[in-house]
Amino acid sequence: MTHEAVRYVKGHGTQNDFVLLPDLADEAGLTPGLVRALCDRRAGLGADGVLRVAVSAADGVRWFMDHRNADGSLAEMCGNGLRLFALFLVRSGQAEYGEQRIDTRSGVRGAVVGTDGTVGVEMGPALLGGGSVARLGSQAYAGTAVSVGNPHLVCMTPTPVTDLDLTKAPIADGTVFPGGVNVEFANLLDDPVDGADAHVRMRVHERGVGETAACGTGACAVTATVLAGSEGTVAVDQPGGRVLVRIDRFGAFLSGPAVIVGSGVLDPGWLSAIAG
Amino acid sequence: MTHEAVRYVKGHGTQNDFVLLPDLADEAGLTPGLVRALCDRRAGLGADGVLRVAVSAADGVRWFMDHRNADGSLAEMCGNGLRLFALFLVRSGQAEYGEQRIDTRSGVRGAVVGTDGTVGVEMGPALLGGGSVARLGSQAYAGTAVSVGNPHLVCMTPTPVTDLDLTKAPIADGTVFPGGVNVEFANLLDDPVDGADAHVRMRVHERGVGETAACGTGACAVTATVLAGSEGTVAVDQPGGRVLVRIDRFGAFLSGPAVIVGSGVLDPGWLSAIAG
Repeated sequence: MTHEAVRYVKGHGTQNDFVLLPDLADEAGLTPGLVRALCDRRAGLGADGVLRVAVSAADGVRWFMDHRNADGSLAEMCGNGLRLFALFLVRSGQAEYGEQRIDTRSGVRGAVVGTDGTVGVEMGPALLGGGSVARLGSQAYAGTAVSVGNPHLVCMTPTPVTDLDLTKAPIADGTVFPGGVNVEFANLLDDPVDGADAHVRMRVHERGVGETAACGTGACAVTATVLAGSEGTVAVDQPGGRVLVRIDRFGAFLSGPAVIVGSGVLDPGWLSAIAG
Repeated sequence: MTHEAVRYVKGHGTQNDFVLLPDLADEAGLTPGLVRALCDRRAGLGADGVLRVAVSAADGVRWFMDHRNADGSLAEMCGNGLRLFALFLVRSGQAEYGEQRIDTRSGVRGAVVGTDGTVGVEMGPALLGGGSVARLGSQAYAGTAVSVGNPHLVCMTPTPVTDLDLTKAPIADGTVFPGGVNVEFANLLDDPVDGADAHVRMRVHERGVGETAACGTGACAVTATVLAGSEGTVAVDQPGGRVLVRIDRFGAFLSGPAVIVGSGVLDPGWLSAIAG
């Protein structure tokens, strides 16, 4: 870890927030302890995770998104993080508005950055599975298993999702989801918006985390369930904001806002204290 | 609101965290909406409050701590915020290590900044009142009313404070505390530390907020209760860290760590969006 000026950017995609570290020279020596300290919401900068901007080893792709969870562990692809990552590359002059390709732990993904801050990213396929049930309190909700790289259980329900208590984890069938599951509850709404084929309101409980303001793969899983095998676009309202998900033969494509709040330099004394 | 580069500092005092805005030219036009946006822990930078560094109108005092709560309202003096504020003045070359005086909404306060990042601040008198009771779940805890500018109820208890459930507010006597009260639960510990006359472990439930990692006036209230009218120093361990409180005929003096995590510039586009 160099203790010279370490630059950072704070931002979010539909309120899934990140500390982004432009580490082009691969000098940050990002340790799990530093990730935890950065993500600490009182003693650090505060974030759901860290996105290190690193050089890719993939052919013809310049940047690798090195995504870490707030607990310091390595994280897979994250649609909300990738939107912020792509916006940063454009804003910092590393890429142009329009299409770009970014390497991730789940492979190379396409991204499209609009001049209005809307960013779309390739999410890969969203594969419909069989039916299952989520229990929340004394209620059982029928759902559909969906794989978007990670496992989801999508429960379309007439119960307004705003009325649900997600402070406790929904209980799913451990024989169907031995590694746990992300559970989405969603209402189909009547009013079409933004030219989409359908409009839903969704809340999500992420495995090992709890309720979150937004989940990119969750929005794709809900869209796959609503479209039920056909192609189309669904507007998904989450507590953290609206995204549009298009599913076609190329897979799922997630579009939504990405926001840079501020950028700065870590205090050298703070860094030294963390590094011990 | 100018949309030119607005600088900020993120830091904390015993994990009571703040966005500090060096607004020496009084240009920030700090609105309640901007305060709320800055303090938002996902869509903003995230903090318990904002400390605007403003010019003082008081005789012979250069700086005024304009403290706002996360909800945008004006806040009174805050010992944990004042420590960070004083450290910032030294680190930015606006003041020297050692003693300085800072204007606040509760009047001019002295601060002493050590080269190790420990900062002591004058907290004013901590006045012992009568006995009262706090109810937490099915238990009643005997306590002592203490005024440190704001009202406190200090409950010294043999029950380990680490075992208490403070997710719900303790219930105090509304006739004694018509405006609500901050409730501290504290254990007297056997092991002397840091040369103090006594050592306590404390947790606090702040009125209108919930449990917090640290409370400067709360630490002073606990110290006044432990010293019971005599002069002395108490080491107070809070979830956010240890502070030392000395009480003598000049009042209470709170010493503890202040930490600057990072400093930067707000994104002009983000600022424009907040300002509408």
